[in-house]
Amino acid sequence: MGEEVITIAHGGGGTRMRELLEREIFPILGLNEPYFSEDAAILDAPGKKIAVTTDSYVVQPIFFPGGDIGKLAICGTVNDLSMRGAVPLFITLGLVLEEGLPLNTLRKVLESISLWAKEANVRIVAGDTKVVGRGQADGLYINTSGVGYLKDNCEISLSAARPGDLLVINGYIGDHGIAVLGGRDGTPFETGVESDCAPLSRLVSEMISSGEIHALHDPTRGGLASALKEMAQASRCEFVIEESSIPIRDNVKAVCEMLGLDPLYVANEGKLLASIPEACVNDILRAMRKNPYGRSSVVIGKVVEGRAGSVVLLTPMGTKKILRIPSGEQLPRIC
Amino acid sequence: MGEEVITIAHGGGGTRMRELLEREIFPILGLNEPYFSEDAAILDAPGKKIAVTTDSYVVQPIFFPGGDIGKLAICGTVNDLSMRGAVPLFITLGLVLEEGLPLNTLRKVLESISLWAKEANVRIVAGDTKVVGRGQADGLYINTSGVGYLKDNCEISLSAARPGDLLVINGYIGDHGIAVLGGRDGTPFETGVESDCAPLSRLVSEMISSGEIHALHDPTRGGLASALKEMAQASRCEFVIEESSIPIRDNVKAVCEMLGLDPLYVANEGKLLASIPEACVNDILRAMRKNPYGRSSVVIGKVVEGRAGSVVLLTPMGTKKILRIPSGEQLPRIC
Repeated sequence: MGEEVITIAHGGGGTRMRELLEREIFPILGLNEPYFSEDAAILDAPGKKIAVTTDSYVVQPIFFPGGDIGKLAICGTVNDLSMRGAVPLFITLGLVLEEGLPLNTLRKVLESISLWAKEANVRIVAGDTKVVGRGQADGLYINTSGVGYLKDNCEISLSAARPGDLLVINGYIGDHGIAVLGGRDGTPFETGVESDCAPLSRLVSEMISSGEIHALHDPTRGGLASALKEMAQASRCEFVIEESSIPIRDNVKAVCEMLGLDPLYVANEGKLLASIPEACVNDILRAMRKNPYGRSSVVIGKVVEGRAGSVVLLTPMGTKKILRIPSGEQLPRIC
Repeated sequence: MGEEVITIAHGGGGTRMRELLEREIFPILGLNEPYFSEDAAILDAPGKKIAVTTDSYVVQPIFFPGGDIGKLAICGTVNDLSMRGAVPLFITLGLVLEEGLPLNTLRKVLESISLWAKEANVRIVAGDTKVVGRGQADGLYINTSGVGYLKDNCEISLSAARPGDLLVINGYIGDHGIAVLGGRDGTPFETGVESDCAPLSRLVSEMISSGEIHALHDPTRGGLASALKEMAQASRCEFVIEESSIPIRDNVKAVCEMLGLDPLYVANEGKLLASIPEACVNDILRAMRKNPYGRSSVVIGKVVEGRAGSVVLLTPMGTKKILRIPSGEQLPRIC
């Protein structure tokens, strides 16, 4: 008996597809089938303002130290909603499966999706499954779109950092990128690094309860450097960063040095950059450090009038570096 | 000078990706860049009930007679929302691009997305772009998720067909599948068939204004046969269909006969199956026939108590056929 695998017929809209949905996908995700057969889900609108986001996940390998594509798809989309101060509620799940994908791989990814959706308190409300031929995908790709609701008066925005704010990060950077790299076939060394992939919705909600927040952004593709640059540009301020204050694990530093990577540009999947009025920073930091995903939260810099969109790094030697964005990514298919 | 193509760096989160977004994607889609850089869009919730759906599109070829993957991605998601009686409002756009994709192909697809989003009166509110290596996708895949709003008291559902209803289709079936097939390299004949791909939101809104509708379903993958079967099963009724009343174009019939396909199982992208109380059918049919996407609307059968989930075809010879769902799809990657 060969291994059970995905076939083209699983994507055809016939009985094989119904079987895949009813025997594999729905039970693992805990979905009520009749509800899920509808063309669209009807849901109670949770408030006057909703937040909407989308992300596709093509990470390679599918399973990596500290996570997998399913965990990433839930956390990434939950985090995007959280970065607007929204409470994540509903997730849609679009699967693109390559012919020949072992059914067991799909099962494990779905179990991870189910687990992390529960952890993040979001409900999968709609889905779609397509199958493409061999060599037309790489195992599986996932799209998750998310809908959340906004509590009154929450105006957190990438463009709302203001001079006088302090910049806070909730822990060590670069873990995700290095963990994924370490999980790839042919990587000739053990990194010992696990991805930081995590849902940040509860952390953000606790932060909001503890004081005013101006801007939030998750440093995923392009790393902390890109997140800083994008926030400084959108907010038309200058950011001044104390380089030595940025938390980086020794083993992440070591792998980066070996490979000529800069950890500032390596992707994170459980981090947030926050721009917080100075008066609120202590209260918010105290709250963050009580949350498992915020234990190592620190101030890394400040927002000044300066030159709009500029990010200045103060080095331990007392010199200044202007942070620049590279043309591409150091590590492709990291999320 | 070689042709401009997508490279891995376009998906990396660096300046090449910003350039792709700011010079190509945002202008063609008419998006306001600062707004679009946010992690999630904040939108006014349009009512107390929202509709949410998702679909990935992997159609091959990308351009086919009567449409392209971009038009399909807008119309398919708009139609899924419409099938619940919802008014489509917001669309998210997830692109997975294969390295080497000509930039001109992407531009044409985006122009089509922009055109059909305007036509369907929906706004693209969030997006994501990933790039995978050669042989890890097939040109490009698109995910569109959609959010719509529900007017009060609209309870259209796949499971709400009732004995006494008449079953209505808004025109000729099988066009989309045959058009896509005809567009493929190596198809040794001209089909002369164009896809029926169309946004049905306005048609549905006009139908709702003209009378009561119990159930709607769009016969995409698996064709009209699967749509009938799914509605009969979800509604726990029997459907009795007059086979000769189903509108099928002569050239679709001819291609199907040549290739051994059954047009009842061939995909549509601009069709809807409606289950309507008999008393409302004439008014609704009159409204449908005034809409460009409903000119050839007809009654094809009725809903009876009978055997729950069963679909019976009455043939022109006066015999009965029980409709069955095949295991896979006759034509892969049709949407």
